[in-house]
Order: sequence, then structure tokens, then C-alpha cells
Amino acid sequence: MRMVDIIEKKRDGKELATEEIRFVIDGYTNGQIPDYQVSALAMAIFFRDMTARERADLTMAMVESGETIDLSAIEGIKVDKHSTGGVGDTTTLVLAPLVAALDIPVAKMSGRGLGHTGGTIDKLESIAGFHVEITKDEFVKLVNEHKIAVIGQSGNLTPADKKLYALRDVTATVNSIPLIASSIMSKKIAAGADAIVLDVKTGAGAFMKTAEEAVELAKAMVSIGNNVGRKTMAVISDMSQPLGFAIGNSLEVQEAIDTLKGQGPQDLEELCLALGRQMVYLAQKADSLEEAEEKLKEAIRSGRALEKFKEFIANQGGDPSVVDHPERLPQAAYRIEVPARQGGVVAEMVADEIGTAAMLLGAGRATKESEIDLAVGIMLNKKIGDSVQVGESLMTIHANRENVDEVLEKIYANVRIAEHAEAPVLLHGVVTE
Amino acid sequence: MRMVDIIEKKRDGKELATEEIRFVIDGYTNGQIPDYQVSALAMAIFFRDMTARERADLTMAMVESGETIDLSAIEGIKVDKHSTGGVGDTTTLVLAPLVAALDIPVAKMSGRGLGHTGGTIDKLESIAGFHVEITKDEFVKLVNEHKIAVIGQSGNLTPADKKLYALRDVTATVNSIPLIASSIMSKKIAAGADAIVLDVKTGAGAFMKTAEEAVELAKAMVSIGNNVGRKTMAVISDMSQPLGFAIGNSLEVQEAIDTLKGQGPQDLEELCLALGRQMVYLAQKADSLEEAEEKLKEAIRSGRALEKFKEFIANQGGDPSVVDHPERLPQAAYRIEVPARQGGVVAEMVADEIGTAAMLLGAGRATKESEIDLAVGIMLNKKIGDSVQVGESLMTIHANRENVDEVLEKIYANVRIAEHAEAPVLLHGVVTE
Repeated sequence: MRMVDIIEKKRDGKELATEEIRFVIDGYTNGQIPDYQVSALAMAIFFRDMTARERADLTMAMVESGETIDLSAIEGIKVDKHSTGGVGDTTTLVLAPLVAALDIPVAKMSGRGLGHTGGTIDKLESIAGFHVEITKDEFVKLVNEHKIAVIGQSGNLTPADKKLYALRDVTATVNSIPLIASSIMSKKIAAGADAIVLDVKTGAGAFMKTAEEAVELAKAMVSIGNNVGRKTMAVISDMSQPLGFAIGNSLEVQEAIDTLKGQGPQDLEELCLALGRQMVYLAQKADSLEEAEEKLKEAIRSGRALEKFKEFIANQGGDPSVVDHPERLPQAAYRIEVPARQGGVVAEMVADEIGTAAMLLGAGRATKESEIDLAVGIMLNKKIGDSVQVGESLMTIHANRENVDEVLEKIYANVRIAEHAEAPVLLHGVVTE
Repeated sequence: MRMVDIIEKKRDGKELATEEIRFVIDGYTNGQIPDYQVSALAMAIFFRDMTARERADLTMAMVESGETIDLSAIEGIKVDKHSTGGVGDTTTLVLAPLVAALDIPVAKMSGRGLGHTGGTIDKLESIAGFHVEITKDEFVKLVNEHKIAVIGQSGNLTPADKKLYALRDVTATVNSIPLIASSIMSKKIAAGADAIVLDVKTGAGAFMKTAEEAVELAKAMVSIGNNVGRKTMAVISDMSQPLGFAIGNSLEVQEAIDTLKGQGPQDLEELCLALGRQMVYLAQKADSLEEAEEKLKEAIRSGRALEKFKEFIANQGGDPSVVDHPERLPQAAYRIEVPARQGGVVAEMVADEIGTAAMLLGAGRATKESEIDLAVGIMLNKKIGDSVQVGESLMTIHANRENVDEVLEKIYANVRIAEHAEAPVLLHGVVTE
């Protein structure tokens, strides 16, 4: 088998065989196939696409390029949720205890990563004492006994994907549906998920700028999951503005607590229910999505979800009293209002730019070496479609420094007030098969 | 300027600016842009093509990536002829003295290269004493005084093209009209041609398998030439079967002598006139292609072309008596006939495979280290469309070994005899602007 023949085959629009895809991924992972052939193939895939079969094969070849996590010691169907990335996305903090309260195992492996705010682990570490330094055995035991635990991700998962992604990034081949879909799905599958629920973001703050593209990506990933024996569903949700009100680590923990109490932002709650009902259904704890949603609402109403959150915090060394006393979470030294410079209706609040403003305050990592300030961030007081008067506060900056000119400038440049505007649609669709 | 942005621009079907193309070629030549980005760009070009302006810019960027030959010391318009490569192509040996006889400067730089037979220099070296070890000054003086000389090609011409071609070869991006056209044209321009005549081959023995593809390539090259100030014309000619009768070094020299005497194979003579008339016209030695052709025919009829060949041979140390005594050229020890195994009409005689048969005899180099045997080769006794009886000789093998089973096998596998067949059309078209 020769790589040049495989490139030519794809270039000419033919379907690659399973063993050809395996040859490419194995050869690339072990260094026998050079970058310059793989980038040419990636560009050919950009133009020629891949069939459902090819996409499934590519995904599994990447899964098998490295270690995989074995979660078989955990009882029940492990449903993992994945978001394609947004700003102020507190859904994981809400959903983990919420579905665990319905006896669904939540075995969360998470990273820290770069971004506007920290990852799930960083956010949880705003709770005094909370830590993820537990052994694999403790992790399994916690999930079996309490249905919920979080551990830092380790192991050499999907090295082929890491290498391929780095190459795509510098060869203008990132933006290819089969390559994006197989990359995301390979990571979830290698991490041991039995079933997967996807939150595919669309809008100014998301990678997929239009709902059509997001639906296409969602369908591609759901198809891959179902083709490789991992039941997968997806929700397409708006990311033209930040989700909920909070952007920041301890701020989002507080927002998650509010939501588990049934007092959270309406959009965050709505999205959590949309994703949660798919998780409950795929975990076979309900016979329909409607029944699943009812169970989730009941878990919130009854306080069981909030109790599960406390239990989870305590299990991992954290102080569960923050749930009833959120003022015990890290607080920033300064609260600086951002007054509207004109009256009208909020028409635009560019999600990723507002996220960058939060990162400038120290809420997220720009590089691996950056230190996160868990207390800082931004609380939205208005969202798109809300009326605002001159001088009324659009957002509250939580800062640990007095001078936030740079942050203000970023915010004002990315908020637009007009005469008329409507709140964006939150849910653009679902993909259930 | 970032390479990834340039790849993306081309990927999305936009036209690259002159300075972007220059950035790519300069960066690739000096090693600042890696192979993996250039291969992705080449694949994007494969799918998106290049405009006439981009093609001209790419050609000139490659020309300027290395040394260029300055032929300004040679008086007159230097017209170079280039063939995209065929089997038994004796046109250069005929055309060089033929157009020189019309006072057109033929300053031929030639290589040895790999192939079914040797290059022009190898072929000429079948003439005892002939050599190309002359200085640049002697070369210029010979051309100015006698209108014809041959020298080995030296200098680091179009390094970008060499590097790019090697990369394209292993990334399935060879077969792209803008990349093929700019590669060929950059080499001709760097070698100092003022005007260029192209012989674009089509058919089983050629890179361009169909006449349509060959016409497209011819138009692309003519457009580049004219866009960069080098008047260019092209002939599209058949290479489904070998040209003329001879395939081999001394065999082709003898065939060239026959043709200069007006006694050569009809197809070879016809093609030489088609190419020659464009050369004469572009050298401004005739006001029309018709007038140019008349002058060429007159040069053959009058014996002036043959005299010029003798003069040329003598100037470079060779024995001009071979022109009148071709038996003084190297002769192979064995002549082995290839009898037809059935009667009928020759329907197929796959050019490149018959060429490979000649190479197996030792007529050409398979690797740079191969030694050429100047005496060996194949003489066709029949061509496509000719009737043949059982046992009648299809070809004569000129060998320096007795056992030629492998060569016979190759020949029989690539000659087909049928009930009916017609001679292929030799000239598929011309491109004059």
C-alpha cells in the first residue's frame, strides 16, 4: 500500500477502504508517513468529503492510535456530554449532579485547557478543599457508590488526532466536517463513553457560524457515534451571546448552584434540560425524551439535584456549605459596572469577544503557563433583546485590579445597542438519530 | 503574510496576489515554508486551478528562484523547442541543423536524464569524437559563427521547481495543469529562451492521455509564455505509437540524417515541419507559417540542412563522414526480428511500453548510474494501420546480447493485431496564440 495512491484515490473522489484509512492513521502516528502527505490528503478530504463509513473508520483508527480508558468497572451506561465550546457555558456543572441524581453514572474526566475561563476542574476548585487528585480506583468507587466523580484526564489518548489537528491548524484544513467530527468523536470514545450527547454551538462565539453548518456537524457526529456502537444525540444551541449571565470560574459555580435550585438564568436552564433529557434517555432511565425531561425537573424541584451536588463536593474534599452560602466562594476585590452609553435595546453582545474580555481579567488561560484567577469574571445584567437606558449597567466586571480600561474597551466594542432587536433563538434543533 | 492564510485563500477559490505567490516560492526555496504547507497548497491548486495571471506569476517566481542563463551575447532571437516527452522522438536532432540552416541561432543546452533512450547529448555522442565539453565562450562563439552548438546544461536553474516537483510526485499533485505548465515554462525561460515552441504529446505513451488534455496544457503554456514576454506556440502531436521508426541512440541519429536528406519516416518529417515552421516564424525569419514551412522544405531539398549538420558535427569534434556513411555509427552485434504471430492490421503499439523494451536493451537510463549502450535499440518495420502477414517482421531488435526474451515478451504484450485499424492522426492541433 502506498500513501501517494491513497491520496490520489481520495483526490479523485473515490471511497477509501477501511484498511487504507488504518494504514494512513497508523503510519502517521508512528512517523512512517510524513506530514506533507497527510496534509495533501487532508486537503483532498476537504474537497471530496468522506462517506459515513469512512468517517466511522477514521474515528476508530484514531481511537485505536493510543490508549483508551476502560470504564467497565463502573456500573450502568456511561453517558458523556460534549460541547463544541462556548462562553459562559455552565452546563457541565449543572448537568453532572442533575443526572447523577437520577442514578446515572457521571464519570467525568476533564482537563484544564486554554480558554476564556478555566475548565470544569478549575471551576470546581473555586470550592475550598475540592480536589481531583484521586486514584483511578477511588474514582471508580465514588461513581459506583455516589454516581458522580471528577478526575483529571491522563493517558495518551488519540495521539493521531493530536498530531493531525496540529497539522490541520497550519494547513487550512481545520474546517472540514468529516475531520472535525471524527476528531471530536474519537476523543469521546477513547475516554470510555458508552453514549454521547453533543452540544453543538452556533453563532458569532462558535466555530460553526451558521445554524446550517452546526446541524451538518451534529448530524456527522451522531452518524459516527451510531455507526461505531455509541448511541449519540445532539442539540444545536445558540452561542451568538454568552450563555447564562456568568463568565468566570467561581461566578459560574454560583450560577450552577442557582440553576440547581431552579433559580438560574432561563437560557441556561433550558439548554440543560435539552441536553439532560437526551442523557437520561440514552442512559435508559426514561422511555421517552418527554419522560426524561419530567424526571429532571422533578430532581430540581425536590432538591435532590442540589443534594447530589453537595454530596459530590464533600466526596472530593470540598466544603459543601458554599451551596447554601455562595458568598464563601472566592470574591473579587472590585465590582465595576459597565454603564450603557446610549438607550435602546441590546442588539449584539459578541460571545467570544466578551469571553476574551473575561480572559483579560484573568479568568482563563491564554497559554499553558497562565495562572487563573478563580474570583474574577463578568456578570451580564442585560442580554440581547433587553431594553436598556442610558447609564444603566450592561454588565458587572469582577476584577482584582482597579484599572480595567482594556476590558471596558473590549466590551464596548462588542456590544451594540439599537432601536429594535429580538432575543436570539436558543435551540436551533436536535439530532436524535 | 502567513502561509496558512494563503492556503486558505486558494482553498476558497480566491486569486492569489503576485506577492503571495512570490512569498510561497521564495519561502519554500529557502526552507522557511515547510513541505506540509506547500503540499496542502498544491492540492488546493489541483482543485481550484489558477488564473492566467497566477500561472505567469508562479512561473516567473520559479524562474527567479535560482540562476538564469544569459544568452544575450548570442545574436538573434533564440527559439527553444521543448517536447513533453515521447518515444523515438528524433525531432531535436532534425530541427537543430534544419533551422540553423535558415540562420536561426540554435543554442542548445541539453541534459542526459533518465528515459527510454538517452538525451540529445547521448544521441550525438554516438558520432565518434563528438563532445559537448566546451566553454561557455566557445559555445557563444560557435552559435554566433555557425548558428548551432550544443552544451551540457549547468547551473542551479529553477531550484523551486525541482523541490516542488519532487513534493508533487509523492502527494498526488503532479496532474494539475497550472502546476505542469508553470514547471515546464519556468525551465525553458530560466534557460534563456526568447521564444518557445512546444510539442505537447498525447496518447498512450504520453503524460496527457487525451487530445483534450493535451490541448488544455498547450494553451496553458502558450498563455504563460505570452504573458511573460516569451512568444510561445505549440503543436499537439500523437504519441500513441513511437514517432518515426527508430528507438535508440545511434539509430535515431541515422534516422535524423535520413530525414535531413528528405528520406525520413513520413510522420517524423511532418512533425518536424509543424514544429519547425513555428520556430522559423517566431525567429522572425518568415512572415507567415506557410512561408516558414516553404523555407524549411527548401533547406532540405537544397542539402543546406544536411550540410549544416556536418558542419555542426565537425565543430564539436565529431566525424562528419557518418552523414554519408551511417554504417560508421555504432552497430549492435545482433539483429533479431520480431515476427508477427498472426496476420491482420497493426492496431496498437503502446509507445511507452515499446520504449521500455528499448531501455531493457540498454538504450536508456533507468537510474542515474545506468550506462547507456549507444548501439542498441528497436527499429519499427510496421506502424499502426499497416497490414502484416503471419511471420512478417514487426520490428528489428538491435541488441548486444543474444537472449532478448524479456524484450520480446514486452513487445508482444504491447502490440495488438486486429482485422481492421487505421493509422492514428499525427497532429491533433496547433496553438499559436
